[in-house]
Amino acid sequence: MSDDPPPDVLDRLEARIRLNRHGDPATSYTAKLTARGRAKIAQKLGEEAVETVIAAMRADRDEIVSESADLMFHLCVLLADAGLSLDDVRAELVRREGLSGLDEKAGRKKG
Amino acid sequence: MSDDPPPDVLDRLEARIRLNRHGDPATSYTAKLTARGRAKIAQKLGEEAVETVIAAMRADRDEIVSESADLMFHLCVLLADAGLSLDDVRAELVRREGLSGLDEKAGRKKG
Amino acid sequence: MSDDPPPDVLDRLEARIRLNRHGDPATSYTAKLTARGRAKIAQKLGEEAVETVIAAMRADRDEIVSESADLMFHLCVLLADAGLSLDDVRAELVRREGLSGLDEKAGRKKG
Amino acid sequence: MSDDPPPDVLDRLEARIRLNRHGDPATSYTAKLTARGRAKIAQKLGEEAVETVIAAMRADRDEIVSESADLMFHLCVLLADAGLSLDDVRAELVRREGLSGLDEKAGRKKG
Repeated sequence: MSDDPPPDVLDRLEARIRLNRHGDPATSYTAKLTARGRAKIAQKLGEEAVETVIAAMRADRDEIVSESADLMFHLCVLLADAGLSLDDVRAELVRREGLSGLDEKAGRKKG
Repeated sequence: MSDDPPPDVLDRLEARIRLNRHGDPATSYTAKLTARGRAKIAQKLGEEAVETVIAAMRADRDEIVSESADLMFHLCVLLADAGLSLDDVRAELVRREGLSGLDEKAGRKKG
Repeated sequence: MSDDPPPDVLDRLEARIRLNRHGDPATSYTAKLTARGRAKIAQKLGEEAVETVIAAMRADRDEIVSESADLMFHLCVLLADAGLSLDDVRAELVRREGLSGLDEKAGRKKG
Repeated sequence: MSDDPPPDVLDRLEARIRLNRHGDPATSYTAKLTARGRAKIAQKLGEEAVETVIAAMRADRDEIVSESADLMFHLCVLLADAGLSLDDVRAELVRREGLSGLDEKAGRKKG
């Protein structure tokens, strides 16, 4: 049935973000962050990445998982703010699969 | 059948990374990056996050998608290097769902 | 004499950047980076900060010094690109000194 | 006289940080941050860099100056925590000057 929640928690997370982002900033972190605008959302994404980097250097597995979850959450908030979704990212990854039977790097532009 | 590739491209990406990370650094970017060690993997994750932040500020949707795909890829390389997977991150997000019927922020520690 | 080079290497660095930024991208890194535009300069600053963070976590003193020098260099390139200089940053720090006899934090907005 | 405060505000900032870092965390931000340890100091440096990147993309000159001042402050806290100082960074920049009459890039390792 189409009203069933998505089976993948990443998609449920995204659905909840889309629901909450125009909600009440007093009760929803997503709504509050979204109301502060694109620069603030991008800033939080950058900060969570820094925390993930530090967790990785500390080799603290619980912290890596927790910071990665924070990073995924803020990436979804950013994507939603840009009118995009994880499915757009998935489509790009599928496109890259098609470009390479050899390595996952194909399709990536040079850094 | 258990040998079917996972239906979600994120899981296929992760499976390919796990396969390639101990492969030949001469032909696999994943193997090459993994061989350079944890600090280099963390550095690349941080750099991709910076590029995602900049894409977000430029409001370039194609660039946001492309940089988000790069970020997801490097997050999966980092998780694999720590003996973790996206499923560990999903489990953490499921745990947070259980903590809150109200907002997606519950379960996040204060930044 | 006014043509003497500045005694502080930070000011000499800045003077050289101002001289080189409109130079030949084929021979000057500063000119090449500047020609790539603001987003690329900002990206490099972010990347050097990530490397400084990682050097700090590794507690490698030589690497901290080297990455800090890279960070200072790219900060000066960014300031020059915005028509600003280290003296503008110094003026801000002097302003904050005036706001506080007690702590260096005064004058900083909340993060 | 040797007790005169340094004429360059960057050095005064550093002297104050060295004085405050073992002070009372209840009244000194420097003491409080230092007490939280290396990872927290590195995290703050990374966060200020992200804010500088965003200020640069917004082309907001006041914000660039303010975030650059925050970045310099946290770099000095990090250097102090590693038993280093801006003079160590200056010495590295002087060393690089000696390596190149042509470009400020000489002496930088490849990124």
